Amino acid sequence: MTENSDTLAVYWENGEISSYPYLYLRDNCPSPSTIHSNGQKLIETSAINPAIKPENTELRNGSEVLISWDGEAHQSLFSADWLYNHRLSKAAIAERRQEGHLSAPLILWDETLNNNLPAGDYNAISASDEALCSWLENIRKYGFAVLRNVPAQPGMILKVVELFGYIRETNYGKLFDVKTTVNPNNLAFTSLGLSAHTDNPYRNPTPTLQLLHCLQSSAAGGNSVLVDAFKVIADLKSHSSQMFHLLSTTPVNFRFEDQHDLIERTDTIIGLDVFGEVNAIRFNNRSVQAFEVEEEQMIAFYEAYQYLAKMIDDERYFVEFKMEASDLFIVDNERVMHGRSAYDGAGGERFLQGAYADRDGLLSKLGVLKRNAINQLV
Amino acid sequence: MTENSDTLAVYWENGEISSYPYLYLRDNCPSPSTIHSNGQKLIETSAINPAIKPENTELRNGSEVLISWDGEAHQSLFSADWLYNHRLSKAAIAERRQEGHLSAPLILWDETLNNNLPAGDYNAISASDEALCSWLENIRKYGFAVLRNVPAQPGMILKVVELFGYIRETNYGKLFDVKTTVNPNNLAFTSLGLSAHTDNPYRNPTPTLQLLHCLQSSAAGGNSVLVDAFKVIADLKSHSSQMFHLLSTTPVNFRFEDQHDLIERTDTIIGLDVFGEVNAIRFNNRSVQAFEVEEEQMIAFYEAYQYLAKMIDDERYFVEFKMEASDLFIVDNERVMHGRSAYDGAGGERFLQGAYADRDGLLSKLGVLKRNAINQLV
Repeated sequence: MTENSDTLAVYWENGEISSYPYLYLRDNCPSPSTIHSNGQKLIETSAINPAIKPENTELRNGSEVLISWDGEAHQSLFSADWLYNHRLSKAAIAERRQEGHLSAPLILWDETLNNNLPAGDYNAISASDEALCSWLENIRKYGFAVLRNVPAQPGMILKVVELFGYIRETNYGKLFDVKTTVNPNNLAFTSLGLSAHTDNPYRNPTPTLQLLHCLQSSAAGGNSVLVDAFKVIADLKSHSSQMFHLLSTTPVNFRFEDQHDLIERTDTIIGLDVFGEVNAIRFNNRSVQAFEVEEEQMIAFYEAYQYLAKMIDDERYFVEFKMEASDLFIVDNERVMHGRSAYDGAGGERFLQGAYADRDGLLSKLGVLKRNAINQLV
Repeated sequence: MTENSDTLAVYWENGEISSYPYLYLRDNCPSPSTIHSNGQKLIETSAINPAIKPENTELRNGSEVLISWDGEAHQSLFSADWLYNHRLSKAAIAERRQEGHLSAPLILWDETLNNNLPAGDYNAISASDEALCSWLENIRKYGFAVLRNVPAQPGMILKVVELFGYIRETNYGKLFDVKTTVNPNNLAFTSLGLSAHTDNPYRNPTPTLQLLHCLQSSAAGGNSVLVDAFKVIADLKSHSSQMFHLLSTTPVNFRFEDQHDLIERTDTIIGLDVFGEVNAIRFNNRSVQAFEVEEEQMIAFYEAYQYLAKMIDDERYFVEFKMEASDLFIVDNERVMHGRSAYDGAGGERFLQGAYADRDGLLSKLGVLKRNAINQLV
């Protein structure tokens, strides 16, 4: 351990050396006057003197560092564990990020998943935290899951959402009915087939979860089709980094308008996070508007768009099943696209109820269930 | 007008020449078999032959182009207006984007807005579309507005949200009470002062609107403070493009954890849209976690973070007012930060109710009200 002008250097037994700026250490002091017992920070980072220095630094029991600050009657005690887990080398930061990925990986899938649909049972997940945790973990990993034995009664979808999160109400209501209607304001409410798509790309924030619950299913046709856009995009990127680039940097406009609503959003078809990794797909050929792409680029953009759309329509990416009354599925609406084959509206009934919700509530519930499960093991 | 191998060239009277790829024209044909009367596209773009050509192109009445397609019994009729409004030159696309900005500009503000707070009256906006439109337009432009004379009864905030959109329910409930509580899970529920911040940066999607309604206000202190982060960021960028760069590209982690919830998000403090323009601020020193920034960069990152935080605490950016019972304000939670001064919890009551909602519903309602107003003029 060495005090430098503005950093503390720690020499680890394995030979590694870590530097911690004093400002960083004071800001993250684990004392109860700095961090409230609920985890919230109680000090204003902006109020710390950027040139803050220790008056004294002391190694205690070989596993703790006690810093007495200069000009402030305050001491900070850091454990060796805390310091090790907060090493600030590029490699250590990358390693922690990688560990996060490994502990919660996504599983990309194609048609082979048809043999092993992630599914749960409504009675089980209502009664058991373990079953609920497992069902929610499937949604996190695969971007969707089926749920069986949800009583085929209107409004049951609200009960399902209550198990893990909150309904996102929109102009379609808390719940909406998906069946053939006269003068539909949306093609979903006809008997036409629908290529796999994401819902509401014209909305910002887009609802991040969609649920569909089957109440009646006697019409011929109308199979549900799900496609993992993250798998499709990974394959598209392998095929052509140029197409990937165009689709992740070109803004397109999505729009929905009817008597009561006028909703528009301009964003890329492939969304990237701050690390440059794919975090969203927005794909809906029905609501996309004329592309605003320069004439020299237009042909290349159409090539990429058509290529992506054809991949989405390619059965080798399809998970396909016919929903029966009391079946429900949930999709991550920024990852897994859903569609349906056409059905015979005259030859029987097809009646689904749908609703939107958000991923944050689901991931929070999943995190708490996992935390509780670990605590019970201890 | 000239037919080329894969584009139609149009010569305008002003000397400008525009090229339209045939694929683009077929895809955007305005016929009812291509675009449903509700505005949704009825054809699959991926199914159009990329090498599609006209069999014949005909100029009609000097103001319409009729294209008969080769290999398809279909004709497309484009008006000169449509073609002019869809010119695909870089300049034309930039011009349309600029027109969009000019027709709906944001107004950045600082303390001078104290003399002219955007405000509405609950009775007026409940009774009149014109008053509602004007109040919503203020929220769009300024990122916030006050509302007076909202009866000081619990739950009234739900009635206000019904006028323009939908509640976003979270773990804090549909509505939450902001007053001093024993064992608070959040510092908001103490009498401490709070620097201006955005709410729920640990949540994704973050609620894009927050409402606070005052039911009781007899405590000393507890002024509300609002700060326009877009103005602050514009000034920060002028001061240092390096600080702007660090704050808009460095991921930070926000976290909230209590007995029932565990919510985390990693994203930049300054959010940029696909055009590189600022579209979000995420700033909450209470929920931000230890920065994962390499040791060589850490000092520079702290400089930028402290500089931003001090700007946010600088009174020349403050809109400040004391809420009285029956006052309400709404903020765009990705643009306008809110805070409060400390108050004397023993010397009186301070009781607010809060709720979240989303901007998409508000902007849709605003769009419809504007459209209706224009239609009434016609």
